[in-house]
Amino acid sequence: MDSKTYPFTHDPAQQISGLGECILLEHICNWLGDTTPIAPAGIGDDCAVMELDATQKTCITTDAISYGQHFDATVTPFEAGVKLIHRNLSDLAAMGAQPQSAVLTLLSGPDLALAWLKAFFKGVRSACVAHTLKIVGGDLSTLPAGQFSASLTLLGSCKRPLLRQNASIGDWLYTTGTLGGSILGKHFRFDPRLAEGQWFAAQDACRAMMDLTDGLGKDLQVLLPNDSSAAIDLNSIPIDEAAQAFGLQTGKPALQHAFCDGEDYELLLAVAADADCGRFETCWQAEFPNLRLSRIGQIISKHPAGVFIEKESGASIPWTYGYEHWKRDV
Amino acid sequence: MDSKTYPFTHDPAQQISGLGECILLEHICNWLGDTTPIAPAGIGDDCAVMELDATQKTCITTDAISYGQHFDATVTPFEAGVKLIHRNLSDLAAMGAQPQSAVLTLLSGPDLALAWLKAFFKGVRSACVAHTLKIVGGDLSTLPAGQFSASLTLLGSCKRPLLRQNASIGDWLYTTGTLGGSILGKHFRFDPRLAEGQWFAAQDACRAMMDLTDGLGKDLQVLLPNDSSAAIDLNSIPIDEAAQAFGLQTGKPALQHAFCDGEDYELLLAVAADADCGRFETCWQAEFPNLRLSRIGQIISKHPAGVFIEKESGASIPWTYGYEHWKRDV
Repeated sequence: MDSKTYPFTHDPAQQISGLGECILLEHICNWLGDTTPIAPAGIGDDCAVMELDATQKTCITTDAISYGQHFDATVTPFEAGVKLIHRNLSDLAAMGAQPQSAVLTLLSGPDLALAWLKAFFKGVRSACVAHTLKIVGGDLSTLPAGQFSASLTLLGSCKRPLLRQNASIGDWLYTTGTLGGSILGKHFRFDPRLAEGQWFAAQDACRAMMDLTDGLGKDLQVLLPNDSSAAIDLNSIPIDEAAQAFGLQTGKPALQHAFCDGEDYELLLAVAADADCGRFETCWQAEFPNLRLSRIGQIISKHPAGVFIEKESGASIPWTYGYEHWKRDV
Repeated sequence: MDSKTYPFTHDPAQQISGLGECILLEHICNWLGDTTPIAPAGIGDDCAVMELDATQKTCITTDAISYGQHFDATVTPFEAGVKLIHRNLSDLAAMGAQPQSAVLTLLSGPDLALAWLKAFFKGVRSACVAHTLKIVGGDLSTLPAGQFSASLTLLGSCKRPLLRQNASIGDWLYTTGTLGGSILGKHFRFDPRLAEGQWFAAQDACRAMMDLTDGLGKDLQVLLPNDSSAAIDLNSIPIDEAAQAFGLQTGKPALQHAFCDGEDYELLLAVAADADCGRFETCWQAEFPNLRLSRIGQIISKHPAGVFIEKESGASIPWTYGYEHWKRDV
């Protein structure tokens, strides 16, 4: 009798790759049971929030990058190092938190080149210095030859984290920056919106926030409360020039790329229905004159035509999907 | 011109595997510069320590397990899940900290079997429940087929962490439990010494502590202050029965296995020279009647014969090495 338990299987019906990331995560939460608290104390938001005392909270997030999945040889090691830090900082930004400390785990084949790793850490250091982040610990672990992954766990502090789950019907929807076509370069050159996130968290009118990593079409659905839809002003969607350029390559509308491309790393937020939007936007302009803030629509009661509706016509918007890591990459 | 930057190299002289873990870690600390604080605030102890306020500190540690490196198909997925949690808890134990929250990163090939992963999480959950630890977040990332790694970052709290660096000449050396031969089974069945670590941290007489992961022969050198040696009573070394059994297989003395085998996950500590050792040991027995505590020697001024000296004869003890992950595995 073979008493060995191999982790891998050739039977596609038993492989995790058939599930998709969301279903797999549901399984994991079920398996963990009481061991994983509900968000924001546990899994489900950009960070988990731990209460230290009445005034201060700690946010924690973790994110990895792997060679062959998140980057390849066309990316410089410096860029890969920056991206590892920035991806995680974007999750802190999405809570309105201030970066504090991080631990870094390297999993690598023995044939990793020292010079490559040095340049990778130059990128890590550069991003840490720019955001006053300290690397306080880590782990080194070996993988088979030709493999490299780096995982960061990041801690930040905040007074009032902006969660994903506090949006209400009537709230206004805003995004920072421009959307789509990130794959043409922005996904390695984005700035995590830390100052912006902290500013939003300090505004009473802001109710909910997240960062756009999987595309507006997928992420906005996370922000919407139960039994609601989003009435969207398509003219106000801030289409990135790269989405236009990418659309010329793919033959798809630039607007579709703005909805469905991943890795924008912009902020998406819900602002209270009764807020003075004009004043809110004026204050934003004064604080961040060089970054666009777009009011893209409003949360409405569930609409028979679907989850995203054109504000003027009431017609359904079809781009209700985005990037799903687990499925696309496997 | 090829503008691509491949992370891997066929030239052994340029591969990280030639360096050994300690040298690689030195490089990384140099590359990070000011971005990594000195221990205990940064890299260098079992955990990094962050001061929250005058009375409470947060300890953070991270550790990964990989299929093919830390376990293979002879290990059940349940055992692998338990080990991931216990390895990290042992680092908290080594500071005298209480477990609080953790985030878990999975890096896996698409062909991972769902049933295997479910059993892995059963192990994770079991260990978390036993130690009132919460999994508050995580990350899912893909690797090529046939690969599985899991990385945990763990937070704990403590009032007075016991560091590695506070031992002095004259201090008594103690270890918990028994040493050696862990590879025959204990490395998957050990109990992290959390209650014991917390008890030591509450004793004024305890000066420095660490967990034994790479073998007494390597780890004890970390605890010794500069210009010191350890005078060891070889008769007091608590040799595990497994070290005897393993010695019969390898033809090496059981005592060598007690010094040089990795993964004991026992605690090594320095107790103040002027402590009442008899009283200390009596209190220990009352608190932990089922776990052996061995006074194995004393820290002395640097001895001409070497770093480890036989207490009675002054002869050199040759077992001044242990397990080095990076080198052995590659």
